[in-house]
Amino acid sequence: MTTAGAARSFWGWGDTAAALTESEERALIARVAPLLGGAPKMARPPTRDEIELSPSRVTPPASLDSICTVDTEVRAGHTYGKSFRDVVRALERSWEQPPDVVAYPGSESQVTAILDWATTADVVVIPYGGGSSVVGGVEAPAGDRPVVSLDLAGLSGVREIDRTSRAARIGGGTLGPDIEASLRPHGLTLRHYPQSFEFSTLGGWLATRSGGHFATLHTHLDDFVESIRAITPRGAWESRRLPGSGAGPSPDRMLLGSEGTLGVITEAWMRLQDQPAHRASFVARFASFTDGARAARDLAQSGLWPQNCRLVDATEAWLTGAGDGSAHLLLVAFESGHHPVADRLPLAAEIVRAHGADLADDQVTTPGTQPRRPADDASDRWRATFLRAPYIRDGLVRLGLVNETVETAITWDRFDEFVDGVRAAVTDALITEGCGPSPILTCRLTHVYPDGAAPYFTVIAPGRPGLDRLRQWNAVKAAAMDAIDRLGGTVTHHHAVGRDHRPGYDRQRSDVFADAFRAAKRAVDPGSILNPGVLIDP
Amino acid sequence: MTTAGAARSFWGWGDTAAALTESEERALIARVAPLLGGAPKMARPPTRDEIELSPSRVTPPASLDSICTVDTEVRAGHTYGKSFRDVVRALERSWEQPPDVVAYPGSESQVTAILDWATTADVVVIPYGGGSSVVGGVEAPAGDRPVVSLDLAGLSGVREIDRTSRAARIGGGTLGPDIEASLRPHGLTLRHYPQSFEFSTLGGWLATRSGGHFATLHTHLDDFVESIRAITPRGAWESRRLPGSGAGPSPDRMLLGSEGTLGVITEAWMRLQDQPAHRASFVARFASFTDGARAARDLAQSGLWPQNCRLVDATEAWLTGAGDGSAHLLLVAFESGHHPVADRLPLAAEIVRAHGADLADDQVTTPGTQPRRPADDASDRWRATFLRAPYIRDGLVRLGLVNETVETAITWDRFDEFVDGVRAAVTDALITEGCGPSPILTCRLTHVYPDGAAPYFTVIAPGRPGLDRLRQWNAVKAAAMDAIDRLGGTVTHHHAVGRDHRPGYDRQRSDVFADAFRAAKRAVDPGSILNPGVLIDP
Repeated sequence: MTTAGAARSFWGWGDTAAALTESEERALIARVAPLLGGAPKMARPPTRDEIELSPSRVTPPASLDSICTVDTEVRAGHTYGKSFRDVVRALERSWEQPPDVVAYPGSESQVTAILDWATTADVVVIPYGGGSSVVGGVEAPAGDRPVVSLDLAGLSGVREIDRTSRAARIGGGTLGPDIEASLRPHGLTLRHYPQSFEFSTLGGWLATRSGGHFATLHTHLDDFVESIRAITPRGAWESRRLPGSGAGPSPDRMLLGSEGTLGVITEAWMRLQDQPAHRASFVARFASFTDGARAARDLAQSGLWPQNCRLVDATEAWLTGAGDGSAHLLLVAFESGHHPVADRLPLAAEIVRAHGADLADDQVTTPGTQPRRPADDASDRWRATFLRAPYIRDGLVRLGLVNETVETAITWDRFDEFVDGVRAAVTDALITEGCGPSPILTCRLTHVYPDGAAPYFTVIAPGRPGLDRLRQWNAVKAAAMDAIDRLGGTVTHHHAVGRDHRPGYDRQRSDVFADAFRAAKRAVDPGSILNPGVLIDP
Repeated sequence: MTTAGAARSFWGWGDTAAALTESEERALIARVAPLLGGAPKMARPPTRDEIELSPSRVTPPASLDSICTVDTEVRAGHTYGKSFRDVVRALERSWEQPPDVVAYPGSESQVTAILDWATTADVVVIPYGGGSSVVGGVEAPAGDRPVVSLDLAGLSGVREIDRTSRAARIGGGTLGPDIEASLRPHGLTLRHYPQSFEFSTLGGWLATRSGGHFATLHTHLDDFVESIRAITPRGAWESRRLPGSGAGPSPDRMLLGSEGTLGVITEAWMRLQDQPAHRASFVARFASFTDGARAARDLAQSGLWPQNCRLVDATEAWLTGAGDGSAHLLLVAFESGHHPVADRLPLAAEIVRAHGADLADDQVTTPGTQPRRPADDASDRWRATFLRAPYIRDGLVRLGLVNETVETAITWDRFDEFVDGVRAAVTDALITEGCGPSPILTCRLTHVYPDGAAPYFTVIAPGRPGLDRLRQWNAVKAAAMDAIDRLGGTVTHHHAVGRDHRPGYDRQRSDVFADAFRAAKRAVDPGSILNPGVLIDP
């Protein structure tokens, strides 16, 4: 029996050791008191003793016993991902569809053995990386089929580094920090920092088309793939390691976004970056969010390719401590492992000023004399808050708030109407659902393209007690998906589809493509054991 | 009856009006005489009267009569693509598998009508854009099933321009020059210039994952796709127009490279560029090809993203007139629609000089005083030769030469061994096949990646008379594919798979992926009417 990940919270985000301190809890209570009224109470998280699960319905064959566990805390910890819905259910001590078994394969042959057994025994298999899904991507389907959560922690490690080509072969189960720690001595970096960075894996990133560090140019991890190897119930699906190819449709691009429905990603050759040696950045202030978006658009179309180009609205800037709430902020940063980039700042400054930015001259002049600059401070504060946010989120949920996000993408021609439309739909739904008279709804642009942007909305609003909060959020989320669909956006830019986005996804993709994808899945997973109901029905 | 494209050569490249002049022919003869010995004779191209085709085996229904033709010259012109093999067969007056009918749909509903009829009548349909395939991609399969060549010339035009997002909706049958002519008044460009630019279409480029103008960063057209719409026998396969998305595997990426096997690409929303307003370039000379490749590698890894970064070996430089044959040339060019780029030259120069480049200072200093520079001249000569090359190729084939290319890609760690290995295999095979004692084999890098490059080999060698030359080339090509496979490259970087690359492709892709792709095809093309045998057997 393996019980890897024991320090991980089974009910909320991250490591138990990094949970909110008592003083952080008090500060959070004081901060949200005006929103909630009275003296808000923070619900107590569940303890191991409070976990009650339905008994496991299946016994793996003896040959797999050593890599399987039915430990209660482990099963509970693999029942959900880490979305608002997941935390609420755990806080309510509700684990209705736990996996019957959690398996920890240590090799591809053990993955194959589990898939073989599952196909024979009609057991559902849910590939599980870091378990950080916020879209129901690692959740068991309802029904009578037993479920195995396939935890890939044992398939980890940077296995080979090709310094000449700047690439590495990395196990699918490798967590973000472990990837970077292995690459750092070689002066290399994958430089992929989703918000889940500490608790998510390469395989999970690839399976969900994760969005990372780069706000322009290479926004999704997709572009850094040389080759992917996955184990399907019918054998290995792999591609040749290549810098580029035109030989038929890309096998990798079909696995990217397949969310565990086609195979288990066991390793990939990934393109790397040199560690950045040169940096330059500024923070521009805008009175109008629309003007800030126009500036971001022109930056994206300029070919300057800033690594960071994130527009944060005034409210979110205030909430995250990046600003005082008096202006919308556009964080623009350049970096390079090769050449100085400070000469890009005046070019970028000219663009943002043309759209009315408030930007002090000393932010644009070449750095050197100033060891710390306002842009660095704002950026650092924002990043620290960024990685800490899920812990805070858990605190807000314990305080009874609805705290969740909606992310999407749209082309520039429809941008204003789209953002206004989604904002209105979510606000209306929050009010209709009784989430207080003035729910907080913030917006930032996480990624910016020459032809559009990825708006990211965050909701903070009072909710009703218990599981009622889920019904409130489900209604709000449905309203958001309706608006996104009606206004032509995508149901997800980088959180993936999972189970939660299925209604929007089904309207977005064409039926003919769905037929082709379903047929492809059947060919490699004839027993429909892999994540059935995620992306597509069998 | 439509007879579009009447000015197009039915046996060789391009427009009949642009064929080699008599003086060009004389110059070419003089140039290759040393290679062939004696007084080489240029074979006379076939005339319309010399075309003998098997009779058409099928009659379309009356409802489709107005868009179908069985005209002999049209059928002959749609029998082959434009490879060496194709031209040799046409010169030998051999059209063994002509399409029975050539159809010219003028609308999506006419495409649907043809697919419906073909499915019912068990007729093979070959989507045909500009017909510039050099891999047997538009060639009919042997067998008893009647064949329709579906010429998409009628589905052309730039239909909508979104200036704000810099994107356009373009018909699949639109030729390169027509796309650019429509975009130019808006200050926009698709900036996709494959060698076939004048005689190939957007739909063809997408179906074959065409490689274009940009030598680094966005090398394949794939990255400029917002959405694709294709008509399959089961209906429309289309995606939502988006700047980015993480909603499942990309439907567009499955069509990209599908080579007409899944559906007929009728239109796409494409991302555009601003017309370049700033340019800067130099040509560096290298005594060693390997050093030139190292310089190209470091440029690709620098993040400077030159638009042009093409390494041409000394022999090819001499043949194309870009150089005198005394050095390998690396053409490096920057361009921007937004900001001056001359400041990139010293950064790039430092990189290439570190690898021993011979590069004069006056090529690197900011231009302005010099209206024309050596780099411009070499680059212009090279580009003019580039677009004229297929006409010259036809002349060389008429002179009895074997003149064909092999293109591939490989990561940098294996680059030297790979290029040497392919070169040796091709040279050995040429000599074994009796293509003279010293065949010409040149190499250039057409596209350069941070993790590898795309070497492109050109063969010029004396061949045996008649169709024997095909058997010679087939053996050489097989040896090249064997070497590429053995050394880990891709069977094609941007020419596509078609029928010619099937043996190498079958070894390169995993069987599990092939099963998935075959199943996807069956789901949307249950009658297996679309390009059967290209990419995959039914």
